[in-house]
Amino acid sequence: MSKLVSSLREALEKAGLQSGMTISFHHHLRNGDYVLNMVLEEAEKMGVRDLGIEASSVFDVHAPIIDHIRGGVVTRLGTNYMGAKVGRAITQGVMDNPVIFRTHGGRPSAIENGSVKIDIAFVAAPAADENGNANGIYGKSACGSMGYAVSDARCAKKTVVITDCLMPYPLSPASIEETDVDFVVQVDEIGDAKGIVSGTTQITRDPVGLKIAKTAADVIRYSGYLKNGFSFQTGAGGASLAVTKYLKPIMREKGVKGSFGLGGITSYMVDMLKEGYFEKLMDVQCFDLGAVASLRENPNHIEVSASRYASPSVKSACVDHLDTVILGATQIDLDFNVNVHTDSNGFIMGGSGGHSDTAAGAKLAVIVAPLYRARLPIVVDRVHTKSTPGSTVGVLVTQRGVAVNPKREELKQRLIKGGLKVFDISELKEMAERVTGTPEPISKGGRVVAKVEYRDGTIIDEIRSAE
Amino acid sequence: MSKLVSSLREALEKAGLQSGMTISFHHHLRNGDYVLNMVLEEAEKMGVRDLGIEASSVFDVHAPIIDHIRGGVVTRLGTNYMGAKVGRAITQGVMDNPVIFRTHGGRPSAIENGSVKIDIAFVAAPAADENGNANGIYGKSACGSMGYAVSDARCAKKTVVITDCLMPYPLSPASIEETDVDFVVQVDEIGDAKGIVSGTTQITRDPVGLKIAKTAADVIRYSGYLKNGFSFQTGAGGASLAVTKYLKPIMREKGVKGSFGLGGITSYMVDMLKEGYFEKLMDVQCFDLGAVASLRENPNHIEVSASRYASPSVKSACVDHLDTVILGATQIDLDFNVNVHTDSNGFIMGGSGGHSDTAAGAKLAVIVAPLYRARLPIVVDRVHTKSTPGSTVGVLVTQRGVAVNPKREELKQRLIKGGLKVFDISELKEMAERVTGTPEPISKGGRVVAKVEYRDGTIIDEIRSAE
Repeated sequence: MSKLVSSLREALEKAGLQSGMTISFHHHLRNGDYVLNMVLEEAEKMGVRDLGIEASSVFDVHAPIIDHIRGGVVTRLGTNYMGAKVGRAITQGVMDNPVIFRTHGGRPSAIENGSVKIDIAFVAAPAADENGNANGIYGKSACGSMGYAVSDARCAKKTVVITDCLMPYPLSPASIEETDVDFVVQVDEIGDAKGIVSGTTQITRDPVGLKIAKTAADVIRYSGYLKNGFSFQTGAGGASLAVTKYLKPIMREKGVKGSFGLGGITSYMVDMLKEGYFEKLMDVQCFDLGAVASLRENPNHIEVSASRYASPSVKSACVDHLDTVILGATQIDLDFNVNVHTDSNGFIMGGSGGHSDTAAGAKLAVIVAPLYRARLPIVVDRVHTKSTPGSTVGVLVTQRGVAVNPKREELKQRLIKGGLKVFDISELKEMAERVTGTPEPISKGGRVVAKVEYRDGTIIDEIRSAE
Repeated sequence: MSKLVSSLREALEKAGLQSGMTISFHHHLRNGDYVLNMVLEEAEKMGVRDLGIEASSVFDVHAPIIDHIRGGVVTRLGTNYMGAKVGRAITQGVMDNPVIFRTHGGRPSAIENGSVKIDIAFVAAPAADENGNANGIYGKSACGSMGYAVSDARCAKKTVVITDCLMPYPLSPASIEETDVDFVVQVDEIGDAKGIVSGTTQITRDPVGLKIAKTAADVIRYSGYLKNGFSFQTGAGGASLAVTKYLKPIMREKGVKGSFGLGGITSYMVDMLKEGYFEKLMDVQCFDLGAVASLRENPNHIEVSASRYASPSVKSACVDHLDTVILGATQIDLDFNVNVHTDSNGFIMGGSGGHSDTAAGAKLAVIVAPLYRARLPIVVDRVHTKSTPGSTVGVLVTQRGVAVNPKREELKQRLIKGGLKVFDISELKEMAERVTGTPEPISKGGRVVAKVEYRDGTIIDEIRSAE
C-alpha cells in the first residue's frame, strides 16, 4: 500500500512508463533542475522511445534533451519557455514534430480541458511525505511556490513525486496533495540550489535600463490606475524589476495602498509586501530565496496554482484582476505585437511564459525595452514571432520616450498631460533606425519547428528552422 | 464582468436555476444554517419545481424542506446525514423518490466521478471577496473548515457564493478559490452563530458514558497501535469525546507522540495539538469555536477537503492513514454491522457521515455504545439499517466489557492480556437482554424511502417507511 518506492527506476516501472507516452515536468527548480534529465536518462536506459514531454519551461540545464531527441527517446515537446541552448537545437531542426509553445495560463487550461493528456506527471518536490503531500518551502532544494505542478498532478493518469527531503506525514502546507500522488521516490538531489535561484533577479545597473524603468514608473503614475487597491506584476528581468524601485516612492508620495503583487515573485516584491505597499502577494513561482522565505513565513504571501494565476478557462484568474503589468520584449512591431520567443536571428531563446496571459488580463500592459540592442532595433515593421497580440498591449516604454497603442487614446492624453514624451510607435522605430540603420529582414527560414499557441488554444504564429 | 450580484434572486437567475436541476449545499453552519432554506424559499417564489438537493447534511433547522417536498419544489434528496425532524417526515413517506444516503467520502467521490451531477452549488461563506475566494475563519458566522464544499464548487456547472462578510480581494486563505466561482451575493446573515456550534461537543458527564470512554482508551492502550506516529479520530458525541480525556494521560505515561488528529475537530483535539500530543490536525469540519480559532491561528491545524479527508477514489485520503477511530452506534449486530441511520423505531435520525469511511480506513475502528438505551438493547441480531459493514469494525466497547471482531484474534489476545473484560458479542447481547428483555423486532415497514449508498457507490441497505 505504500507509495514510497526505492528508486526512480521502480517508480517509472510501477507508473507504467512506456514508449509513446506523454510525461510532464514543472520548472520551479529553473536552471538548477535535475529531475527532467534524470527521468529521461532512466527512460532511455529502460529502452523507452517516442516520448512526448510537457515541460512548463525548458532551461539550458536541460540541454541533454537534445541528445534524447536525436536518439528518438523524445519526439514531441510542449513548453511555455525555452532557453537558448535547447532553443538553438530546435531552431536548427533537431526534432521532426514542431514544438508547441503555450502560455503559463494556457498550459493548465489545456491540461484541465483534456486537450493535453499527461500519462505521468513528475513533481520535483523540495519536501514531501511518504504519501505524496509536497511543498517547496522546506528542504535544501527549496524553490517556494509549486504552482505550475498543480494541474499536472491533478490531471495526469499517474503522478510521481521525486524529493530529496522526505518529511513525516502529514506534511503541511501541501502544494501538491496526496489525493493526486501515486508514487514517491527519494533521491540524493533534485537540483542545484545555485541554479534554482536564477541570476536574472538583479535590478539592472545599466543607465539605459534605469531610464526606461523610471519612465515606466511614470507611465503608471499618470495612467489613472495607480490608486488604492492597485495591483501589479513585473517580470524578473533587470529593467522590469527596476520599475519597482521607482514605483515605491511614487506610491509613498501619492499615499497609494496596493492590493496585491502577482506573478513570479522576487525579494523586491517581498519588500513591498513587508513595507505595506501591497496587502498580499500571489505567487506562482519564486525567483529568489527571499521570496521562498517569505512564502514560508508570511501568511499574506500566497501560493497560487498556474490555473488560478492565469488560466483563461477558469471562472476568474488572478491576471483578470491585474491593473498593471511590466513586460519585456525582444521585438515589438507597429501594431504593438510583441515577440519574446525568438532573437534577432530568428533563433528560439524564450517563450511567452505569462507574458500574453498578463497582457490579456491586465488593464494596462507596459512593454519596457531599449530602442535597440546590439545595434538592432527593437521596434520593427513586423515581429519575427508573434508572442503577444498587440491588441493586449497598452504602452511601449523606451529610453527615448513612450508610444501608446492607438486604441488607448484616453491613456495617451493622460501620459501627455503627465509630461511624458509620447511618440507614435513608428517615430520610435525611426529613431532607432537612425542609429542602427534599417536591419536586414530575418529569413523566414525553412520548415515549421515550433507553433505558438495562444492562451485560448489557437495557433497565432509558427517558428521556422534557421541555420 | 463582476461576479457580485445584488440579491439572491439575481444570483439564481444569472446562474440559470430551472425546474429539474440539482443544486448542492454543505453543512458547516450545521443547525445554524440559513442558506439552504433561503435558496429553496427563493426558488419556490420563482416557480421552480422538481429540484434535486445534494446536501452534505440536513439538520433540524432545515425542516422547511419538508414543505418544499410536499409542494413539489424538491423531489430528490441526497445527503450524508439527516436530523430527526426531516428524518421523521422522510420515514413517513413525504417524498416519492427515495433519499440517497452517502458518506462524507463517498459524496465527493460521486461528485468528482460524475455520478452525481450538480447544476448549481451554493457555498455558505463566512467570508468571501467579490471574486469568490472564500473561507470560514473570518466573519460573524465563522465556521472554520469548509472542506465539504470543495468538490461541489469545483465540479458544479455554476457556483454561487453566499456571504455575510464581504472582504477585500484577494481574500486568503481561500478554502474555495475564485477559479470555481461564478457569482457572489452578500446577504445579512448566512446563519445563526449559536446553531453553528452544535451542542453535541460537550464531554459526557454520564457515568456510564465515562466508563465506556475509559474502557475505549484502554482498548487503544493495549491495541498495539498506540506508539509514536499514532493517528486518531473521534466523533463529536459525548462519549466519543470523553475518550480523548482518558487517552491523554495514557499517551503521556507511555511517552507517545501522535502524528495527527483527524475529522470533525473539537476544542479537545485542539488542546491535544497545543499540548504536543499530536503534530497536526486535519480538519474537514469544526465543531466549536475553539476549533475555528485554532484553524485561523495555528499553521499545524490544516483544513482538508472532504475528498482529501475520506474519498475512496483518490490516490490516498487521510482516513487511509488513520490508526484508530472512535465511533458511535444506535445498533450493532452479531456480525459487527453498525446502524447510525435509524432509531429503535426505524425512523431516520442520522446517517453515516464519516462513520463508514473512517471505519474502512482506520487500522482499528472502535464502536462505543451503552449496552442499552431507553430499555432497548444496542446489540441486536441484525441491525435495522446497515450503515457500516461489520468487516470494517474492530471492537465494541460497552460499560460491561468489550467484544472483538472474530476476524481480529490477535487484537483480542492483546486486549485480554491488557486485562480488559473481553466477551463474545452475543454475550453482550444476552447481558443487555437480561435487563431489557428481548425487544420486539421493528417492522420492516412499507415502501423504500431511502437507500444507503456505501462509500464505493454500492447500495448496502434500504430504509422503509414507518408510521
